[in-house]
Amino acid sequence: MDFIEVVKKRFSIRSFKDKKIDDETILELLELAIRAPSAGNIQPWEFIIVKDREQKEKLAHAALNQRFVAECSHLIVACANQELSSRVYGPRGWDLYSIQDVSAAIMILLLGITNAGLGACWVGAFRESMVREILKIPQGIKPVALIPIGYPHDFVGKGPGRKSLKEKLHYEIY
Amino acid sequence: MDFIEVVKKRFSIRSFKDKKIDDETILELLELAIRAPSAGNIQPWEFIIVKDREQKEKLAHAALNQRFVAECSHLIVACANQELSSRVYGPRGWDLYSIQDVSAAIMILLLGITNAGLGACWVGAFRESMVREILKIPQGIKPVALIPIGYPHDFVGKGPGRKSLKEKLHYEIY
Repeated sequence: MDFIEVVKKRFSIRSFKDKKIDDETILELLELAIRAPSAGNIQPWEFIIVKDREQKEKLAHAALNQRFVAECSHLIVACANQELSSRVYGPRGWDLYSIQDVSAAIMILLLGITNAGLGACWVGAFRESMVREILKIPQGIKPVALIPIGYPHDFVGKGPGRKSLKEKLHYEIY
Repeated sequence: MDFIEVVKKRFSIRSFKDKKIDDETILELLELAIRAPSAGNIQPWEFIIVKDREQKEKLAHAALNQRFVAECSHLIVACANQELSSRVYGPRGWDLYSIQDVSAAIMILLLGITNAGLGACWVGAFRESMVREILKIPQGIKPVALIPIGYPHDFVGKGPGRKSLKEKLHYEIY
């Protein structure tokens, strides 16, 4: 699909058909996602692919009981490898670069999902300690987003609007 | 351009032709960028467009003397409005959501730049206090990236490689 069309068509999908995506498609989407830039090309992202129903149910519970988190085909948990970034860049790597780099990869992933005719949602609202425990995520790795992926229902609405760009623009100084 | 082609063609450009981009193109690119998702649709991004040569020189100096930062057509400074995100989400909004949301917008911006036949680089290495002073950025707003944009030189190389996806994948648990 044309790039601009993909950007315009993408919005958060929270309702999926009961139909599985093949694993190969998920891997192809992740292969695109890791083309994101990263500070020093350190690539401080980690992806946990969750298909097990019980794991998905636990994660939906950790995500403040958002049911659609469990009702997807594949749930990808995108993590920032803070330990890796901070080895080179110290606190700025830990707090900033690792988060921004995985976020960039997630954005490509979400666009790729739209391009593939699939739907997803960036779920950031979850109890981090619970997610850590469910997925056995060690210190130094931070779960940043739960991304449920599935086939969207045909009627999926239009997504929320945006503030005018003008409100967000500044010239030469803030 | 096809979405997948854009993702594959995008890499960091650090050398620009001495040719100006028209302002309208920059605004169109930013209009696409703000279609990024954000926690609670809060849209905690702010963009400072810098064209003034003297401002660009100062910012290049703050960016550890990376000369290409001054030698672009337009320099966009993407900021996270931490104050805005934290009003709703507290510390998680300040530390995580505002950073991830602006990073998602930056990623669309970079892809849009490639799609438009232009080049850019996500510059994260800069002295934050200097950038704050040059651009009069208040507390609660965090400059996340300097993004110099210009027409790339015809010969621009291929960008660095990536680690194998396998190294970054985990199944069911970390």
